[in-house]
Amino acid sequence: MALPIFKSPFIRNIRRRPLSVIVPISVILVIYYLFFSAPSVSTKTTPKYNYNKISKGWFAKNRDSVILQNLPKNHISHYDLNKLTNSPDALAQQEEVLLLTPMSKFVPEYWNNINALTYDHSLITLGFILPRNTDGEVALKALESSIKDLQSKNKLNYKKIVILRQDSNSLESQKEQDRHALSVQKERRGMMALARNSLVFTALSPDHSWVLWLDADIVETPPTLIQDLTIHNKPVLSANVYQKFINKETNQEEIRPYDFNNWVESDEGLAIAANMADDEIIVEGYSQIATYRPLMAHFYDPNGDVSTEMPLDGVGGGAVLVKADVHRDGAMFPSFPFYHLIETEGFAKMAKRLGYEVFGLPNYLVYHYNE
Amino acid sequence: MALPIFKSPFIRNIRRRPLSVIVPISVILVIYYLFFSAPSVSTKTTPKYNYNKISKGWFAKNRDSVILQNLPKNHISHYDLNKLTNSPDALAQQEEVLLLTPMSKFVPEYWNNINALTYDHSLITLGFILPRNTDGEVALKALESSIKDLQSKNKLNYKKIVILRQDSNSLESQKEQDRHALSVQKERRGMMALARNSLVFTALSPDHSWVLWLDADIVETPPTLIQDLTIHNKPVLSANVYQKFINKETNQEEIRPYDFNNWVESDEGLAIAANMADDEIIVEGYSQIATYRPLMAHFYDPNGDVSTEMPLDGVGGGAVLVKADVHRDGAMFPSFPFYHLIETEGFAKMAKRLGYEVFGLPNYLVYHYNE
Repeated sequence: MALPIFKSPFIRNIRRRPLSVIVPISVILVIYYLFFSAPSVSTKTTPKYNYNKISKGWFAKNRDSVILQNLPKNHISHYDLNKLTNSPDALAQQEEVLLLTPMSKFVPEYWNNINALTYDHSLITLGFILPRNTDGEVALKALESSIKDLQSKNKLNYKKIVILRQDSNSLESQKEQDRHALSVQKERRGMMALARNSLVFTALSPDHSWVLWLDADIVETPPTLIQDLTIHNKPVLSANVYQKFINKETNQEEIRPYDFNNWVESDEGLAIAANMADDEIIVEGYSQIATYRPLMAHFYDPNGDVSTEMPLDGVGGGAVLVKADVHRDGAMFPSFPFYHLIETEGFAKMAKRLGYEVFGLPNYLVYHYNE
Repeated sequence: MALPIFKSPFIRNIRRRPLSVIVPISVILVIYYLFFSAPSVSTKTTPKYNYNKISKGWFAKNRDSVILQNLPKNHISHYDLNKLTNSPDALAQQEEVLLLTPMSKFVPEYWNNINALTYDHSLITLGFILPRNTDGEVALKALESSIKDLQSKNKLNYKKIVILRQDSNSLESQKEQDRHALSVQKERRGMMALARNSLVFTALSPDHSWVLWLDADIVETPPTLIQDLTIHNKPVLSANVYQKFINKETNQEEIRPYDFNNWVESDEGLAIAANMADDEIIVEGYSQIATYRPLMAHFYDPNGDVSTEMPLDGVGGGAVLVKADVHRDGAMFPSFPFYHLIETEGFAKMAKRLGYEVFGLPNYLVYHYNE
């Protein structure tokens, strides 16, 4: 009641005619109670529902609109998935993007990089899944603190942020050398696959046109990353993940290939798979398994066109744009050997089995954190 | 303003001191505008967000509660998937159920049957997906009309109803004889698999503990269906689908097995699969493919215990209860041959590859519509 407007006539009026104030305020409180009381799993009340027919216009020609009615007190939601578009001009078409990151470590450069993305943040939903271990606790605190920090500066404009804790046991250690040991790859990547599946199938909503998988250790991308990838309008499209480092001899910053999971299948790879036991997997990038697969990491041409595309058979998860319908059709990250592939590489195979094409951009670089 | 309470002193007061009414009403309108304006894909506004830390209590011992904060103006949602329970006493634990039905025909008996389910409807979300063809149009109208009818009687108490239109081309004809021709099974069931995937991965939310797949032509189940299935606390559990019919000789109502997709793998089945080309599929229940698989349909014992369980390797989709985490881990309905299986049978195989067990209840009958 500190507003000047309430000062004298209003207060005096309350004293003389309390009903004239109590009634409207009660209405506010009732509305607030009806609509804003937090949904509680243990509530026994069975609310009434409004039914509004909103299906008219389904066959109108505005193909880029989603019919969506998902408000409190209107519990009947119609979604016409055909009205969702994927277009090369995603931003102009106001297409919504779900940006997904499994996070076991909070890297400030990752956070700063996504906040610098120039795609309209109000069209972006962020989704994170963090492991249930000490690393996850630390990362969660840092992530929450960074969100609050951005919010305090009035710069938090994402449509929504979803934070999940992993529902399965997580591997305790995720140190660089441990993570890359071939022997732990199968278990580690199986866990990662389950985390990715929980994340996408929990966070995916009917209004998302695109899913951008961006690993928590991708610290530098062009700020136009989403526009640059959507313009290709491919079902699955992977950027080329490199790493910056200081060459100790020259003391100069140089770049080197980092992610070897973007590859084209080879005769050798197929032959190895054909002779494997059912539950064995091929993991690319290890000398123990010589697949001779052409790796996108090696196709980078610093003088080449950044928009050059190459068809791929396997992808890494570093920076991959996926049409949401590919996931809706059921493309998931196998935690089990799927054509002797798991996780992101198995996902690429599954997308292909669902009839989608997979591509990569060898000259479009994003950079991995240098631990 | 028809409320008696507003009648005399209030109206008179407006005339004398309009501000005392206009200010509170403006507050209501501003609140309403801020919180209830429909989310529009084409909006350019970037709303501000409130950030409330709600993670405290995550490690409290109430394992059956979901921390959930998903209100308008609070766009940061924390979900702790570990807090979701699956228990044999699902109703007492207030566990939420997502009841999913792909629907190409609206069968009133199906609708009446689910409305008679005794599981607390406020814990049930209904999800439907309808094909984009003439059948789908007709079914949609009938479904909407039935929902409105129930609502007008104040009997619509479901937590939420989600209606999707299929985003892919649907098969035009779904007549009984067409549907069952072996030659169209692969295509038909591939389409059905995509519909099921779109439905579950769009409708599944973080507060669902269970997913109940119930086909649109299941017209009779015990009203305690959900309690009866959840009490077994299995990752995947299929009821036995029978059909009632009039025996023309005796003129008596009898029952006969209907769904042959609930089966146990056989040596013959494995041998057939081993000799198949990569993209061939086995569809159970056709004399052309003699798998000699033990079919749950034939294990029904009218004098047996209804709670008898049997392990299965394939399931039909008629009435199957699935723990939501099985889907979250990525279990989907393959539209492509997966171990030479597709759709619900491929789903059972995928659940097993993800490490889950699959069971059936041979003596627990539900009934299929008799066309």
